[in-house]
Amino acid sequence: MIGNLNHVAIVVPDLAAATATYRDVLGGQVSDPIDLPEHGVTTVFVNLPNTKIELLHPLGEDSPIGKFLEKNPSGGMHHVCYEVPDILVARDHLKAGGARVLGDGEPKIGAHGKPVLFLHPKDFCGTLVELEQV
Amino acid sequence: MIGNLNHVAIVVPDLAAATATYRDVLGGQVSDPIDLPEHGVTTVFVNLPNTKIELLHPLGEDSPIGKFLEKNPSGGMHHVCYEVPDILVARDHLKAGGARVLGDGEPKIGAHGKPVLFLHPKDFCGTLVELEQV
Repeated sequence: MIGNLNHVAIVVPDLAAATATYRDVLGGQVSDPIDLPEHGVTTVFVNLPNTKIELLHPLGEDSPIGKFLEKNPSGGMHHVCYEVPDILVARDHLKAGGARVLGDGEPKIGAHGKPVLFLHPKDFCGTLVELEQV
Repeated sequence: MIGNLNHVAIVVPDLAAATATYRDVLGGQVSDPIDLPEHGVTTVFVNLPNTKIELLHPLGEDSPIGKFLEKNPSGGMHHVCYEVPDILVARDHLKAGGARVLGDGEPKIGAHGKPVLFLHPKDFCGTLVELEQV
């Protein structure tokens, strides 16, 4: 069912500093920052040859990653995103397997403009999993 | 400098259960478990089309991931591994940029039989980074 790893998301306390670290220290190819107000984040993509890293920073008062940053002030790995060909088929298979889908269980349009779902970390080895239909 | 994302490592409390989750619930292609006594881990690879997930479980008394699992009993994302063409060139560039290399700073032979180094999480947005020469 799962295909490519679309991205690994890393929450960072200082987006400019994190971008400089990935660009200048690790020598990665980084994007400009992109504000996504409907998701409550500003993101910078680190484009690797086979996948990407998404550096995430809270945007606005009610950012969904605000609490994560309070608990992890240095930042940290936040989630992994796997691609699936059909998100409703994937969701129904996951629910039949006992996995919990976060929210109301209906796909939302994610940061890349494509349908996404998030799965409960307790059902996936303590790892928040995003599925994205591609 | 950094090339492909070689893998994302996830520490899991129950390797058989985690393997079943990745195989049966997420539909991934999983390997048999591999004991790596010199690294203090047993690992299962989830082979995605573009990269891999490494499920890690402690092996032996002094596993380097034992404390992580004590702090994160459900498991969790442990590190990301980026490929580099020359690990000594990478190390020297990183040190010149102020990044701390863990241990004695000399590459070790990693789980894939190739030279690896680990970088201090505090210097990389709270994320433990492994570099592997490929």
